[in-house]
Amino acid sequence: MTSHPHPLLIVGSLAFDDLDMPTGAHRDVLGGSALYASLSATLVAQGGVRVVGVIGTDFPDAQLAELAKRGIDTQGVERAPGRTFRWHGRYSADLASRTTLDTQLNVFADFSPKIPAGYRGSPFVFLGNIHPKLQIGVLEQVERPTLVAADTMNFWIEREQASLAEMLRRIDLLVVNDEEARQLSGVHNLVRAAADIRKRGPRMLVIKRGEFGALLFDAAGEFFVPAYPLEEVLDPTGAGDSFSGGLMGYLASLRGEVSPVAIRKAMLFASALGSFCVEGIGPSRLLSIGRPEVGARIASFVRLIDFGGDVSLPT
Amino acid sequence: MTSHPHPLLIVGSLAFDDLDMPTGAHRDVLGGSALYASLSATLVAQGGVRVVGVIGTDFPDAQLAELAKRGIDTQGVERAPGRTFRWHGRYSADLASRTTLDTQLNVFADFSPKIPAGYRGSPFVFLGNIHPKLQIGVLEQVERPTLVAADTMNFWIEREQASLAEMLRRIDLLVVNDEEARQLSGVHNLVRAAADIRKRGPRMLVIKRGEFGALLFDAAGEFFVPAYPLEEVLDPTGAGDSFSGGLMGYLASLRGEVSPVAIRKAMLFASALGSFCVEGIGPSRLLSIGRPEVGARIASFVRLIDFGGDVSLPT
Repeated sequence: MTSHPHPLLIVGSLAFDDLDMPTGAHRDVLGGSALYASLSATLVAQGGVRVVGVIGTDFPDAQLAELAKRGIDTQGVERAPGRTFRWHGRYSADLASRTTLDTQLNVFADFSPKIPAGYRGSPFVFLGNIHPKLQIGVLEQVERPTLVAADTMNFWIEREQASLAEMLRRIDLLVVNDEEARQLSGVHNLVRAAADIRKRGPRMLVIKRGEFGALLFDAAGEFFVPAYPLEEVLDPTGAGDSFSGGLMGYLASLRGEVSPVAIRKAMLFASALGSFCVEGIGPSRLLSIGRPEVGARIASFVRLIDFGGDVSLPT
Repeated sequence: MTSHPHPLLIVGSLAFDDLDMPTGAHRDVLGGSALYASLSATLVAQGGVRVVGVIGTDFPDAQLAELAKRGIDTQGVERAPGRTFRWHGRYSADLASRTTLDTQLNVFADFSPKIPAGYRGSPFVFLGNIHPKLQIGVLEQVERPTLVAADTMNFWIEREQASLAEMLRRIDLLVVNDEEARQLSGVHNLVRAAADIRKRGPRMLVIKRGEFGALLFDAAGEFFVPAYPLEEVLDPTGAGDSFSGGLMGYLASLRGEVSPVAIRKAMLFASALGSFCVEGIGPSRLLSIGRPEVGARIASFVRLIDFGGDVSLPT
C-alpha cells in the first residue's frame, strides 16, 4: 500500500423510507444502505467516497447535490425511468423490533451495478446488502482491491446459498448482525458461528449486536466494541450501514496496512458513526454533524473503553 | 490508605441450590451470594476474604473446610439449628431466563449478621443481596470502611423503599442488573437511570447486563466492560455475585487509592470471574481453577478490548 488515504467505493441501495416511529410518522425520508454507509464514511474518510446505486426520476437533484456537498462522489449513481426504491416500516415502542409494512423495489428491481471506469481501481470496496450475484458482479468490474467488505441478510441466506457461498469466498470482511451470523452458520453460539463463517471465506468477520455492541473475529483473535451509551435513541434505521461506513471510511484513510490494530481502531469509528445515526430520524443527524463532532465522540468513546493499559493479577 | 492489600468482608447467603438445566438436573449444589462472591474474590484478593452468613445443621463440615482451603476465612459463618437456605430453579433452553420453582428460607429467615470482633475493621465490605435493614445492620457493626459495595433485588425495591433508600445513602458502590436499575429509578434509559440512582447515594454504580457486559458510572464518566465471549455457557447461577467478588477482590488488593483507573481495571476482573462462573454447574468451575487461570483470562480479556491506545480522526 502507498502512503496516502485511499478512495472507498460503496455499492448499495438508495431509497425513500416511510418510518412509523413511536414518536411520530415520517414520510419520504432519504434512506438505503449506500446512503447511510456513504454519509458515515465521508465523515471519516480522507481519500474520497464513491457511491454506486440507482434512483428513479422522483429523486430530487437537490438531494444528490446535498450528498455531493458532503464530499460524496455521486458520478456512479444511475438514474433510471420509474420510481426510487421505497420501504415502509413500523418500530415497536422500545425501538427493539420493527415490522415491514410495505416494500416497493421499483427501479431497484432491475439494478445491475455499473462501476464507472474511474472507480474500477478503488482499493477499498463496501458491498451493501444487495443480491449476492450483484455483489459478485461488482467484484468482476474492479481491479484487485486491497480490502472488500460485504453485508448480507436473511433473505439471501435462505434463498441464494450458492451465490452467497461464492460471494463469501471473494471478500475479506463480512459484516452481519447476530441473527444473520446464526442463520448463515446454523450455530447459535456466536464464537462458534464466527469460526464456521470464517472458514467459508472472509478472513475477518464483524457481528453487530445493535445496542449491545459488536464483535470482530480475525487472525489476531476476538475484539469487542460496545455501542455508545446514549440518553436518547430516536431511530435505529441505517445504524448498521452507518457502522460499516465508519469502519470502511477509517480503514481507507489509513496510511498503512489493514493490520489487526487498524481494524480494532476502525471498530471504534464504526460504533461511533452508528451512535450518531440513531440520534436522529433517518440520516438527519449524520447530515447535521461534521468532523469536529466525530472527533469529540471518538474521544468520549475512548474514555468509555480505556482501562488504563497494563492490568495484571495483584501479587 | 496504607500500602498493602486489605481484607475484604463479604456478607450474604449460603445455600443449597437445585438446578434444572437444559443439560440435566443437579441437586444440592452449593450456592448463595456470599458463596459465589467469596470464591471469586479469593481468586483475586491478596489481603484475605472474610465471609459472614448462616448455615443449618445439614451443611457439611467438609464444605466449610473446602472454603477454608481456598483461603476464605469462615469464622463468621454462623451455624443455626435447622436447614440451610434452599432454592430450586429451572432455566430456559437458551439459559436467558429462569423460573423459581421453590424457595425455602430455613435458617436464613432469621438471619441477622453478627460481625466477629476481628472483622470489624475490614476496610472493604461487600453486602450481598439481603434485606436492606440487615445490610444497614452490618454497616453499624463495622468501623468506617474505605469502600462499601452492595447488591439488591426487585423484591426489596418493591417492598422496602425506606430502608433501601437509607442503605443507598450509606454505600459507595451499588451493583445491580439492568432491570433492577430501571425499577429502582423508574427510568428505562440506563444512562438516565444511572444519573438518578447516583443522586440517591452511591457515588459509583455498576449495571450488569449478563451476556451483554456491564457499565460503570462514576465521577469520571462511563466505562463499559463486555462479557467474555465463551464457546459454551453451562449455568448462569451466581455469575452476578462472582462479578462482584472479582471486582471487590481486586479493589481490596490494591496498594493505592480506589481511583477511577483502579475501578476500571477492577471491572475486567469482575467480568473475568463472572465468565469462569458460567462455565460450570454451580460453583464447580470457580472451585477448579486457581490464580494461573485467572491471570490467563485477564490477558485474553485485555486482547478482547485493547484498541491499541491512541485513536484519532484521520487527517
